[in-house]
Amino acid sequence: MVDTDPKKIHDLLTRGVEEVFVRSSLEQRLAAGTPLRVKLGIDPTSAHLHVGRAIPLRKLRDFQKLGHIPVFIVGDFTAQIGDPSDKLSKRPMLTAEQIVENLKTYKEQVAKFIDLSNAEFHFNSEWLSKLTFKDVAELAESFSVQQMTSRRNFAERLEKGEEISLRELLYPLMQGYDSVAIKADVEIGGFDQLFNVKAGRTIQRHYGMPEQDILTCQMLMGTDGRKMSASWPNTIAITDTPTDMFGKVMSVRDDLIIQYFTLCTDRTDDEIKTFSQQLAADTNPRDIKLQLAHDIVTIYHSATAADDAQRTFIETFSKGGVPDTMPEVEATADVAIADVVVAHKVLASKSAWTRLVRDNGVADVDTNAPITDIHEPVQKTRRLRIGKRAFLKIIVK
Amino acid sequence: MVDTDPKKIHDLLTRGVEEVFVRSSLEQRLAAGTPLRVKLGIDPTSAHLHVGRAIPLRKLRDFQKLGHIPVFIVGDFTAQIGDPSDKLSKRPMLTAEQIVENLKTYKEQVAKFIDLSNAEFHFNSEWLSKLTFKDVAELAESFSVQQMTSRRNFAERLEKGEEISLRELLYPLMQGYDSVAIKADVEIGGFDQLFNVKAGRTIQRHYGMPEQDILTCQMLMGTDGRKMSASWPNTIAITDTPTDMFGKVMSVRDDLIIQYFTLCTDRTDDEIKTFSQQLAADTNPRDIKLQLAHDIVTIYHSATAADDAQRTFIETFSKGGVPDTMPEVEATADVAIADVVVAHKVLASKSAWTRLVRDNGVADVDTNAPITDIHEPVQKTRRLRIGKRAFLKIIVK
Repeated sequence: MVDTDPKKIHDLLTRGVEEVFVRSSLEQRLAAGTPLRVKLGIDPTSAHLHVGRAIPLRKLRDFQKLGHIPVFIVGDFTAQIGDPSDKLSKRPMLTAEQIVENLKTYKEQVAKFIDLSNAEFHFNSEWLSKLTFKDVAELAESFSVQQMTSRRNFAERLEKGEEISLRELLYPLMQGYDSVAIKADVEIGGFDQLFNVKAGRTIQRHYGMPEQDILTCQMLMGTDGRKMSASWPNTIAITDTPTDMFGKVMSVRDDLIIQYFTLCTDRTDDEIKTFSQQLAADTNPRDIKLQLAHDIVTIYHSATAADDAQRTFIETFSKGGVPDTMPEVEATADVAIADVVVAHKVLASKSAWTRLVRDNGVADVDTNAPITDIHEPVQKTRRLRIGKRAFLKIIVK
Repeated sequence: MVDTDPKKIHDLLTRGVEEVFVRSSLEQRLAAGTPLRVKLGIDPTSAHLHVGRAIPLRKLRDFQKLGHIPVFIVGDFTAQIGDPSDKLSKRPMLTAEQIVENLKTYKEQVAKFIDLSNAEFHFNSEWLSKLTFKDVAELAESFSVQQMTSRRNFAERLEKGEEISLRELLYPLMQGYDSVAIKADVEIGGFDQLFNVKAGRTIQRHYGMPEQDILTCQMLMGTDGRKMSASWPNTIAITDTPTDMFGKVMSVRDDLIIQYFTLCTDRTDDEIKTFSQQLAADTNPRDIKLQLAHDIVTIYHSATAADDAQRTFIETFSKGGVPDTMPEVEATADVAIADVVVAHKVLASKSAWTRLVRDNGVADVDTNAPITDIHEPVQKTRRLRIGKRAFLKIIVK
C-alpha cells in the first residue's frame, strides 16, 4: 500500500530538507512501491522534545504516511556508556530502568506524529554489546582520522583547542553499525547528523549491504534566532501548556516566521508563499504569527485549545495585561535585579538592561511603577515586565 | 637473587638509552631487590631480526642479567587483524599457524640473548579477544584525539596529507591493555615506541594499577646512515652468514662506528672512549671497524667464525679481490645498467652513477674493464664492482 504520488514524493524530499544523499537512488526507491525501512535514532538521555527536535519526527511521519516503516533505534548502549563530550553529566550513567522510563515518556510524545502500531523500536545494545575489539577495529578501518576531525563540530572544537576524546570518534561507528543491524533503507537525521548518517553508508558497504539513502532536516532556530537550546529561554517544548506554547510562538522573531511555517506546520507551499507576500507587503507580522501559533498549538494539543490560548494571549498582551503565570526565579536579597535578569537570560547583557531601564521599559506589574535605578537590588518578591513581552517573577530566598 | 649494584643499574639506564620515564621510580624499583616484570612486545609478522631490532632485546637481556623477568608479548591479536598502516600487506592476514611458525624462528634468534627458560611468552589474543565495544570505548576515553595525532609519526603523515585510519588510533589501546594484563613493572620500547609504551601507563592508571616505568632505546642507523630498513641494502640481519655480516659491518659509515660499538657490542665505556680518541687522532677507521665487525660476528656466531670472516674480508677486499658471492639481480636485456643499479638501490641516484662512471669507479670484475658509457645497456650476465665496496651480479633474463 505504498503511495508513489510524484507530488508527495517531491514534497517529502524538499520541504524543510537540508540534504538528500543519494537523491536519485532515494527517488527511485520511493517510486518503486516497496515499503522502505526508515531509521531514526533516539537519544534516551533526554526524553523531552522541543519543536526543533520534532522536525525529523515530522519527516518520519511523512514517510509513514506514504506507507513506509519507521524504525526507531534507542541508543541505550551509547547512553549506558555515557556521552564523553559532556564531562559534567558523565556520572551517574543512565541505568536500564531510567532508559525504559525515558522511552515511555518519549513514546507518549511521539505518538502525536507517528502511528506506533506500525513502527519498530530497537535497543542498540542488542547488537552493539556483542561486538568485540576485533569487530570495532574492522569498523574503524573504514574511516580516516582526517574524515573524522574534519566534521564540522570536531573541526570547530579542535580550532578552539578543546579536547576531543578518542571515544567520541567511536560514536559514528556505533550509529553506523545500527544501520547494518536493522537493514536500513533510509536514515533521517537532524541538521547536524550528516556525518553520522553517512557513517551508516560506509559501514553497510563494509558489510556488503546496499547503502542507505540519507535525508537530513533543516535546523529550526530558537524563538530569538539563536540555536534552540534547553539552556536558553528560546525553546518551545512540545509538552508546554497551550497558553505557554502560544505565547512562545508569538515571541518568534519576525524573520523566522516563514521558517516556522515550513518546518513546524502542514501549511501548503502556496499558503506559505501567501504569508511571505503579506509580510513583504507590510501586513503586521503579529497577525500572521497569530495564525502560526494557532497552527502549532493545534498540532500539539487541539484546535479548541488553540482557540482558548489565542483568546488568552490577545486579552493579556494586546490589552497590556499580565499573564496568569510567568517564569519564576529565586534570588538572594541584595543581588542586583540586573544580574538576575541577565543570569536568567531574559536579556542578553547588562547593557541591554541599562538601555531598557533608561527607556522606562522595565516595570513592576503589580504597582505599574517603572524601575529607574539600573543598580536596583532585589528586596522582596516582585513580578516584573521586561520589555514588551517578557515577564519574570523574582522570589526572594 | 636480584643484583642491585648501582654501577650496573646506572649502565642499564643510560647506555644506548633514548629515554627513561619515570627515572626516579625505576631507579628505586631496581634498587629495591625485587624481581621486576619487564615487558617487550613482539610483532610476529616478521620473524627475522636485524641488529637494529635487536637493540631492545639486548637491553632486556641486561635486565635479565640483573635478575628481572623478561615478559614477551606476542601481538598475535594485532597481527590477525592486520596492520592497517601498511595497506599493501593487509591481505592475506596471518593465520594462527604462521604466527606459531614465526614465533619459533623468533625464539631461535632471541635465544642468542635471553635465557628463555626464565622468560614468559604471552599471546595478547588471550585477553584482547575478550574485550567488548564498551571496554574499547572506556579505554578510548583515556586518550584525546589531539594526543594521538600529535605523536611524531602521525603528525608527519598528517603533514604530508597521508591518510591515517581510525583503526591505527586503536593500536596504542591494545598495546597499553597488554601492560594491564601482564602487570608490567617496566616496558622496553624501540626509539619510536615512546607513545605506545606511555599508553600502557595511561591504561594501567585507568585500571587503578601501579604505572609501569618506561625505557626506550636509541635507534641504530643503517650502515649508510639512513634508517635501517629491510627494503634498503643497509641492514645487517642477525642470521647473516659470518662473511656477509663482517663485510656489512665494514661498510658502516665512519661517523657511525661509535654508535655501533655502544648499541651492538659489550665494549665498556672506557674501551669505547679509547676508540673515539683513536678516531679523532686519525687512526684509520678501517682498523677500528675490523674490531667492530669482529665483535658483532662473535656475538651472533662465534669468535672462530669472526676470525675466519676477518681473514676472508682482508683477503678479498684489502687485496682488491672479488667476493665469492655477491647480490644478484635479474634484468631484461637492453635496460640501462644505471637503471638496474639505482632500482636495486646500490646507488641512491642516477647522478651518483654518472659521477662514479666518470671517475672510472665502475668496472667488470671478470674483465677488469671500467664502464665508460653512462648509458651502457645490459647485454649479458655480468659481475660489477660499483664504487669501492659494492658488488652486483646482473643476470640477463
